[in-house]
Amino acid sequence: MRNIKLTLAYDGTAYHGYQRQANAMTIQQLVEERLAKLFGHPLKINGSARTDTGVHAYGQVVSFVTQATIPAERIPLATRGLLPADVVVVDASDQAPEFHARRSAKSKIYCYRLLNRRLANPFERNYAWHLISPLDIGLMHQAAQAVVGTHDFSAFHAAGGPPVSPVRTIMAASCRQAGNDIIELEFWGNGFLYHMVRNIVGTLVAVGQHRLTPAGFAAILAGRDRQAAGITAPPQGLYLVEVKY
Amino acid sequence: MRNIKLTLAYDGTAYHGYQRQANAMTIQQLVEERLAKLFGHPLKINGSARTDTGVHAYGQVVSFVTQATIPAERIPLATRGLLPADVVVVDASDQAPEFHARRSAKSKIYCYRLLNRRLANPFERNYAWHLISPLDIGLMHQAAQAVVGTHDFSAFHAAGGPPVSPVRTIMAASCRQAGNDIIELEFWGNGFLYHMVRNIVGTLVAVGQHRLTPAGFAAILAGRDRQAAGITAPPQGLYLVEVKY
Repeated sequence: MRNIKLTLAYDGTAYHGYQRQANAMTIQQLVEERLAKLFGHPLKINGSARTDTGVHAYGQVVSFVTQATIPAERIPLATRGLLPADVVVVDASDQAPEFHARRSAKSKIYCYRLLNRRLANPFERNYAWHLISPLDIGLMHQAAQAVVGTHDFSAFHAAGGPPVSPVRTIMAASCRQAGNDIIELEFWGNGFLYHMVRNIVGTLVAVGQHRLTPAGFAAILAGRDRQAAGITAPPQGLYLVEVKY
Repeated sequence: MRNIKLTLAYDGTAYHGYQRQANAMTIQQLVEERLAKLFGHPLKINGSARTDTGVHAYGQVVSFVTQATIPAERIPLATRGLLPADVVVVDASDQAPEFHARRSAKSKIYCYRLLNRRLANPFERNYAWHLISPLDIGLMHQAAQAVVGTHDFSAFHAAGGPPVSPVRTIMAASCRQAGNDIIELEFWGNGFLYHMVRNIVGTLVAVGQHRLTPAGFAAILAGRDRQAAGITAPPQGLYLVEVKY
């Protein structure tokens, strides 16, 4: 048996998230069904993260076992005609038997894109959160440094998921101008709670609009109370950029 | 009566081009129907150019007459809730009675985007022409200079449109790297024949792939024979950038 690792880029607009659901098309179901045609048997993929409806990926990683003999380096082009144009296999490799896309992941990088200008941009409607009032990027970057380190992130943990430890380690957080009217926030961490990035971004936006100070942001994190934090940023601005092993 | 000029940005992916058709939704029909709600009467808009199915605009210009009293500067935000997110009014102004979006236009700028890399990019599938083999950008830029000036563009004029003079003046043409794997071609001219930009781009790509020399490209233009030119580049890479008056 071979253990194969695939890196996927996808536009999440048309999908109900990564994880299989009963009555809606997801990335997992799509990839499992289309790859079954290439590998000649039903297959079950493990994903590194469960991206939500509308969330995108530059580098989602999945793994699966197969007995098929296709060389790994041929998989990206071989899958191109099988998958729709909004889901692309950008890399494939053979891994040791113990490799598992989710359990073996050491850290992940997420990016969140904001469109900050008065008028909407039709080309960004599915790819950024449009905010009209000007944001103080320097203050947002300063406030974001509070999440770096090992913390109890209960303040930014959405209810509804399975009970898990709320402690995570963030290695780096940044907020920067990334082009005309586009602001990008980036978070590199060993793991992320359900909606954690979107809740942090929603609260950092309050800092950028001078409705909350960086000290106030740090106090919300320390207070571990979800009710004290800001709104959940919408899904279309979020990208799973990279999974490190 | 007032004569109003609107500048529109739109993602053309979901529309059957600009001009009204019997059985398919177009930009013209959409804007006429939605603006009628704001202005309180049926209206007929004149567009500066008839963009094809899948072609985009950063700055399409339309004009129309109305007796409504809404201040022009309020129209962009007032139309935001009326129009879908893929069509945005980015500017509005009152004009003299003789202004007409198409007949008053002095020149237009079109841009064509190429994605040049081995793998597809799910975020560019509707916004660029994906070409795998590496393109010689410098040679394409050099060849493109042949179109600058006043020429008979019959070699790049698609059949099927109404009979018009094939003579047009191009003020500037360029080809440049515009980011990771993205190449942009830009054409500024006093007018463009049906499919002219897409036919020029399809032929310049042959130059970029070393299947045609810059001298061969110039000879195709001079020969005025559509059969001698290259393929028509697909619509999703084309953008109407600006109309000058």
